[in-house]
Amino acid sequence: MKAGFVQFAPEFCNYDRNLVLVEDILDASDQVDLLVLPELANSGYNFASREQAFANAEEVNDSRFIKVLHEYCRRRKSYVASGFNERVGDQLFNSAILVGPDGLIGKYQKIHLFLNEKDIFTPGEAGLPVFATPIGRLGLLVCFDWIFPEVWRILALKGADIICHCSNLVLPGFAQRSVPIHALINHFYVITANRIGSEGSLTFTGMSTIADPRGNVLYQAGPDTMELRFFNFDLEKARNKQMTPRNDLFADRRPEMYQELLKL
Amino acid sequence: MKAGFVQFAPEFCNYDRNLVLVEDILDASDQVDLLVLPELANSGYNFASREQAFANAEEVNDSRFIKVLHEYCRRRKSYVASGFNERVGDQLFNSAILVGPDGLIGKYQKIHLFLNEKDIFTPGEAGLPVFATPIGRLGLLVCFDWIFPEVWRILALKGADIICHCSNLVLPGFAQRSVPIHALINHFYVITANRIGSEGSLTFTGMSTIADPRGNVLYQAGPDTMELRFFNFDLEKARNKQMTPRNDLFADRRPEMYQELLKL
Repeated sequence: MKAGFVQFAPEFCNYDRNLVLVEDILDASDQVDLLVLPELANSGYNFASREQAFANAEEVNDSRFIKVLHEYCRRRKSYVASGFNERVGDQLFNSAILVGPDGLIGKYQKIHLFLNEKDIFTPGEAGLPVFATPIGRLGLLVCFDWIFPEVWRILALKGADIICHCSNLVLPGFAQRSVPIHALINHFYVITANRIGSEGSLTFTGMSTIADPRGNVLYQAGPDTMELRFFNFDLEKARNKQMTPRNDLFADRRPEMYQELLKL
Repeated sequence: MKAGFVQFAPEFCNYDRNLVLVEDILDASDQVDLLVLPELANSGYNFASREQAFANAEEVNDSRFIKVLHEYCRRRKSYVASGFNERVGDQLFNSAILVGPDGLIGKYQKIHLFLNEKDIFTPGEAGLPVFATPIGRLGLLVCFDWIFPEVWRILALKGADIICHCSNLVLPGFAQRSVPIHALINHFYVITANRIGSEGSLTFTGMSTIADPRGNVLYQAGPDTMELRFFNFDLEKARNKQMTPRNDLFADRRPEMYQELLKL
């Protein structure tokens, strides 16, 4: 199967413009099974207030953004994972959604909020789903989740072949260096789709990264170029957890020794 | 404080020679607070049988190897962490020991065994200690533990400033690429002391690595050179878990979401 990312700059608080932008980018793509878009691709990132974020959010059951993705996936028989500024009643979540030929498949609500996101979003309470699809088992993470090894491991243990990591990274290359190691130590593929451009004092660092289950960087984008890239993935490489003929990364775990991980 | 590693080639199944070799290397060193030696530095690695390993093991309470390290530490008022082929009754453990000016401080018995080690050693059951010493809080890991993010995280949560990672690495650079990321995502120092040379079909990959709490590689040794290197460590950098003004790596954890990590 073929999978990759779209690295671009959503326009801040211009929902209508982002709909057209995403639609145009996807329509121009070659045939690909899975594309990952950045964090908050429908709204932009650097909100001055909760009210501003709220005005640029949608509910998943009534979303023009998801309709655009669904229409693309239906025509192409493909899948898109995207960051999504999600409204649920009077709450906002920094979510990632997975859309396929039949529409919305599911969502993940970001568990670990970064900096001023804490003033705007509710931390996710709905766990770390893995979605079994005809193109593979897909896990979703959002941006700052990169620094918590726990969530990568949990998605691996739940059978994920590919982690779709929707990002608006601003720190200098830390995540881009780290995701190939998460890929290696969990033996799955990682697609980090980062954005480019600036909003206020924040400059996003691009360098979207595709890593394979041996930690090889299949591709890393430039820091400020709009790019859509994809590669052939061999999911058997993600499903085989053998590191040596006598070492299986899962069978060799010693969970009885890991109690301290749940320490509060 | 100053800390570093000794990268050398223990002589296979030549206990007397290794005693002299280690003593000579340590005596020739400049003053340093902590040195880390490779895995199984007293015995060599690639045993043909359990009997051969047994004949080159010692108990910690009656060890000439530990006496050599203790004598060095006493004279220099310094600390050494070293891999140690440990006999406990009729069992063998692939251990790491920590020795200081007053003698043996403690040990760690390798939890995750690699390849044919499974025929020789008992997997460690004694957990993951962190030793509070006058030069800092030290955690011990051995070689293949590198691929299990759980053990690095547990040592961080238990307050380790520095991980002494005693190694005989043979895979092509995977661990050496990974330990700086373990350092970054846990905000501690890592010293990976790897060995050089060959034993039978195994060639050890050197490239001993010192990484700081921001994931910077302070130094990486050559693949086949004998080296003793150390650097100034600022332990405050390891104790400050702030990633941003509003993100503390420990306070931001969501252990209530991590239950699946203990899945067997």
